[in-house]
Amino acid sequence: MASGVDAALVLPDLAAIRAAHARIAPYVHRTPVMTCGAIDADVDASLFFKCEHLQKVGAFKARGACNAVFSLDDDVAGRGVVTHSSGNHGAALAYAAKRRGIPACVVMPRNAPKVKQANVARFGATVRLCEPTVTAREATCDEVMRETGATLIHPFDDPRVIAGQATAVVELLEAVPDLDVVIAPCGGGGLLSGTAIAARSLEPSLRVLGAEPANADDAARSFASGRVEPLPATTTIADGLRTTLSPRTLAALRTHVGTIGTCSEVGILRAMRMIFERMKQVVEPSSSVPLACLLERTLDVAGARVGIIVTGGNVDLDTLQWS
Amino acid sequence: MASGVDAALVLPDLAAIRAAHARIAPYVHRTPVMTCGAIDADVDASLFFKCEHLQKVGAFKARGACNAVFSLDDDVAGRGVVTHSSGNHGAALAYAAKRRGIPACVVMPRNAPKVKQANVARFGATVRLCEPTVTAREATCDEVMRETGATLIHPFDDPRVIAGQATAVVELLEAVPDLDVVIAPCGGGGLLSGTAIAARSLEPSLRVLGAEPANADDAARSFASGRVEPLPATTTIADGLRTTLSPRTLAALRTHVGTIGTCSEVGILRAMRMIFERMKQVVEPSSSVPLACLLERTLDVAGARVGIIVTGGNVDLDTLQWS
Repeated sequence: MASGVDAALVLPDLAAIRAAHARIAPYVHRTPVMTCGAIDADVDASLFFKCEHLQKVGAFKARGACNAVFSLDDDVAGRGVVTHSSGNHGAALAYAAKRRGIPACVVMPRNAPKVKQANVARFGATVRLCEPTVTAREATCDEVMRETGATLIHPFDDPRVIAGQATAVVELLEAVPDLDVVIAPCGGGGLLSGTAIAARSLEPSLRVLGAEPANADDAARSFASGRVEPLPATTTIADGLRTTLSPRTLAALRTHVGTIGTCSEVGILRAMRMIFERMKQVVEPSSSVPLACLLERTLDVAGARVGIIVTGGNVDLDTLQWS
Repeated sequence: MASGVDAALVLPDLAAIRAAHARIAPYVHRTPVMTCGAIDADVDASLFFKCEHLQKVGAFKARGACNAVFSLDDDVAGRGVVTHSSGNHGAALAYAAKRRGIPACVVMPRNAPKVKQANVARFGATVRLCEPTVTAREATCDEVMRETGATLIHPFDDPRVIAGQATAVVELLEAVPDLDVVIAPCGGGGLLSGTAIAARSLEPSLRVLGAEPANADDAARSFASGRVEPLPATTTIADGLRTTLSPRTLAALRTHVGTIGTCSEVGILRAMRMIFERMKQVVEPSSSVPLACLLERTLDVAGARVGIIVTGGNVDLDTLQWS
């Protein structure tokens, strides 16, 4: 690391994102872009949905995980990778490790749904259960690293992961070159910061906007205050967005993102139902947050050509309640 | 009509299907073909899903309705069209008439769900309610025809409609030229007969198979006996397949279709859930019947490259029960 550079704030540039795109191409789908005239009419804009719910493991997370895993030197990779996500990043890391042929361990709280444990295990990764606290998760990760020499691949606070997530918008802009706006949901900010860096490097006049549930609006508050604001206990159904920014992702947002809109829980369900019924696509609540912000007019895109990253489609149909 | 030809048995040939394809091209989507490795592994075959749930009005019915409506001479068309389908054909006819700028009337039973009435009305068609009996539906249709001079567009027993439905498999074979088998669900047999005529004309060695719920197995029974067998009161959740063949569609099936598989109601739900969870596609129960037959091994396609027509995605999420 060059002196004077804070490692905790390093972000990928366009060259790193292009390198990531080439690196992961054999392992991820180039997902389609969908449009829906009936939804356009309701939001007074032309929407272009980048369909990462059709990505490997059903989420954009496959991109970041593959870039991180395939960036490792052989000797480091051989000792395996570890993470502490119970959601899509856990499955994505398991998938990436399987493709590289290296061990992966995903630390999950004991109370994580069996379906999520199975989703990780089906790619051959080890599931290591711990108490459902942040402290226990981190301690268990440290333990795995000490025992095996595995490398930690953080769900979002890692320049390699951010560069990987950024490749979705690179493809979107190749498919639809004349966008005015791009919107991505914001949890830890890995996708949004990568999207913003890539989009603004490729098209400096593009507006990049974030979207999050009002019930988990730490990003909007952090964006306003300039420091990482804590996320109180949250009840949002958008389970992918229950995470706080890191100083790294906040720095990227403050530089490249125009604003962050928030939406109600009812709005998320309404947007999700609209995507099911009109687009016939199964998306998870987090994926519906940008459309919810448009429907509730907390993001202003009137008349614009708008790209939206649809982040994933891993929804538990057994617990899904439409009202 | 040439003497010696029974009008009730006239079927389209490949030339008529190609003409239909050119005629409807401006009004319908060329839908994508999707694959899913995880489902392939479960059925020991390579499946290619022709995604008509992404078609206009959310169903392949847009093809047949558009072909019929745009086949009419101007003076005939000007008097409008009428049908008595409460399902996807009603919405498809309303859509086709709107695109041509002519009146459409859809006769529906008084107890038809409001959502289906709204689906027709949103394209500007008139909804005419009648008592929920076949006699009342037909009498009401006759009344509309007498009053307005409208042309009846039958949901399936019409060579123009059959030719239109056949265009889906034409596109499928252009996208995936080396299929061994094509499977379509069978209700009244319009889609299956058109699919069989087109596929076998283009590729005489192709096997074309039908699929229907065991709870509505009139097509399998008619196919075996050689005459149209009645459909007893049925309870299948595959609401698009609660119809009996006509002598016309039965004749096509007996000539071109290899066999008709049947599946259980539980199997339909299981297949539908698999498509939701693994392919992230919202499909209606009828669309899931071919996959259900493969999972229950009532159709044998081991090792083959299999095209499946996914017929529609209009499912009522409020009443959807996964078990």
